[in-house]
Amino acid sequence: MLGVEFPICAFSHCRDVVAAVTNAGGFGVLGAVAHSPTRLERELTWIEEQAGGKPYGVDLLLPPRYVGSEQGGIDPRQVSELLPEEHRTFVDELLVRYGIERPADQQATVARSGGGLNISRSGYEPLLEVAFAHKIRLIASALGPPPQDLVERAHSNDVLVAALAGTTHHAQRHAAAGVDLIVAQGTEAGGHTGEVATMVLVPEVVDAVAPTPVLAAGGIARGRQIAASLALGAEGVWCGSVWLTTEEAETTPVVKEKFLTATSSDTVRSRSMTGKPARMLRTAWTDEWDRPDTPDPLGMPLQSALVADSQVRINQAAGQPGTQARELATYFVGQVVGSLDRVRPTRSVVLDMVEEFINTVGRLEQLIER
Amino acid sequence: MLGVEFPICAFSHCRDVVAAVTNAGGFGVLGAVAHSPTRLERELTWIEEQAGGKPYGVDLLLPPRYVGSEQGGIDPRQVSELLPEEHRTFVDELLVRYGIERPADQQATVARSGGGLNISRSGYEPLLEVAFAHKIRLIASALGPPPQDLVERAHSNDVLVAALAGTTHHAQRHAAAGVDLIVAQGTEAGGHTGEVATMVLVPEVVDAVAPTPVLAAGGIARGRQIAASLALGAEGVWCGSVWLTTEEAETTPVVKEKFLTATSSDTVRSRSMTGKPARMLRTAWTDEWDRPDTPDPLGMPLQSALVADSQVRINQAAGQPGTQARELATYFVGQVVGSLDRVRPTRSVVLDMVEEFINTVGRLEQLIER
Repeated sequence: MLGVEFPICAFSHCRDVVAAVTNAGGFGVLGAVAHSPTRLERELTWIEEQAGGKPYGVDLLLPPRYVGSEQGGIDPRQVSELLPEEHRTFVDELLVRYGIERPADQQATVARSGGGLNISRSGYEPLLEVAFAHKIRLIASALGPPPQDLVERAHSNDVLVAALAGTTHHAQRHAAAGVDLIVAQGTEAGGHTGEVATMVLVPEVVDAVAPTPVLAAGGIARGRQIAASLALGAEGVWCGSVWLTTEEAETTPVVKEKFLTATSSDTVRSRSMTGKPARMLRTAWTDEWDRPDTPDPLGMPLQSALVADSQVRINQAAGQPGTQARELATYFVGQVVGSLDRVRPTRSVVLDMVEEFINTVGRLEQLIER
Repeated sequence: MLGVEFPICAFSHCRDVVAAVTNAGGFGVLGAVAHSPTRLERELTWIEEQAGGKPYGVDLLLPPRYVGSEQGGIDPRQVSELLPEEHRTFVDELLVRYGIERPADQQATVARSGGGLNISRSGYEPLLEVAFAHKIRLIASALGPPPQDLVERAHSNDVLVAALAGTTHHAQRHAAAGVDLIVAQGTEAGGHTGEVATMVLVPEVVDAVAPTPVLAAGGIARGRQIAASLALGAEGVWCGSVWLTTEEAETTPVVKEKFLTATSSDTVRSRSMTGKPARMLRTAWTDEWDRPDTPDPLGMPLQSALVADSQVRINQAAGQPGTQARELATYFVGQVVGSLDRVRPTRSVVLDMVEEFINTVGRLEQLIER
């Protein structure tokens, strides 16, 4: 269906990871929700040069409900007016408390970020234009059911449509919308994720949407977990976190180092980055937002707009001495972060997954025979 | 090692389930923490009569820290003095709000419950006396590392020791204490449970405690999930929730009916029943304790003492017309509750698990070959 050797889909915001997985026999998917059309055009062209005709995909967020969804989205120029004074002050003072300098013109930097996420139709349509002008094999919605016209346009371009689901109810809604692939994503996943674990969700979704094929996501970083996913009834896997400590990854050096030393207990579902619950490394940043005297995170996309600039400043300062920015630095990651303990090339991560998968199935065969 | 045909351990508070699983070729484990020694004596004798020499086990809670642990536990006669007026009033008024009559002598009923859980040495030693006088094959600690003298006493009686772990760190502590079996239990499990999902926890624990064998727990109610557990590196599985809708189960009719209609999204980790986080059905009971204006649950075993009597009254009233007790009724259960949709004999649950497991491994073999 996807035209790949191994049923391993790799979600990444990093074009290098996407190309490396596709070239290793898997299927790379570029997370593009925060890309400008110009940048997406450049990156898809680059991926196609690297991957030489091998299949890859693009991932967006298409949430049905977000702040301003009734009016088709928020004008980016008006975003800064919608950020409450209390929230802006909290973020500003938080950075000061951790020794990070206040920028000269806070108002200007907030306005520049403009929300960051292209989740409204007017935001994602230009990205779809770019994507459909390239040789993508798949378009995925990581949040929300793909609109009918998107499904039809994809199919008429011979592009498959995938959608992530954290509940069986959402998976059924996606299947009814005509998607070709459901990604059943457990709570242990990094990024936007629900509360039901992969072990429970996958067989439920497989039974509920049959014959639509299902990929398992959440908690998958090695061959044993791929074998487990296929045992649960999935046709393949969708992985994100495992690429974040590869040589190619976009992760900052500080975050990468934190990931390498973190345990599987060190993540938390938090609304502090995007306004919707997303799993990330638990750090001083998530702790500060979790305090009872802290303002509640705003909705999507306002929370992203609120924090986008401070995230850039935290990551810059974390690499320099003289501040406590390192304590704040965090990024989306799943519970498999506990098993990520060295930096490796993406290609060898894929090949090790496949080898462990084959060995695992061999071990199961012997269990039955003995 | 356990002397069973199928590597399926069944945790249950119900002797009928324990005997039925053991007789079907699995391994029944009786949860005995709330039993009196007299009742445990009677139930183990009954199980042995039913199971005719086939192996079974007993499960206790041995938490290292609880209210009063420094002094070796709380005198049951003093429990009621340790329950704050605010908490007693909240529980009392909660029942009145849902139309459940206030008992004649609230003070007396709270005192009678005496904590309920035999988690101190003076509480569990009489249970161990009874257990070791019977032909148990296994003693399990569902919470906390088994004390050294318990491990030695078990081994000198040719009894295996198991311990549940929700983190790799706890599993390593158990292995260092000399236990024979680690049960790696994911967050999706019913009852006391941690935050890491089975898919992530099991391979981590398997690698960390090798060569100690590991059973997978949490999210396991069918053959596909057993195959997935074995793929992750476990030697077998430990299941609890799946037995709660069997014909033999101790579950009240109202709770059983709620379980049959619940989805996998309908559970919550709550401290409202025992004082430590335990997964149960989300109902008006858990919602009421979760409200910001509600007192925080007490520690273990005070919370159990506080609510034990009200749980009995809720379950009694839920079966009668004229109150809203049904809305409050809840019980420990894992996320697999979403797949429990009919009442079946325990024996056929076991045999269906085994059949689906064998079919699943056959399907994986074909995937590799094609």
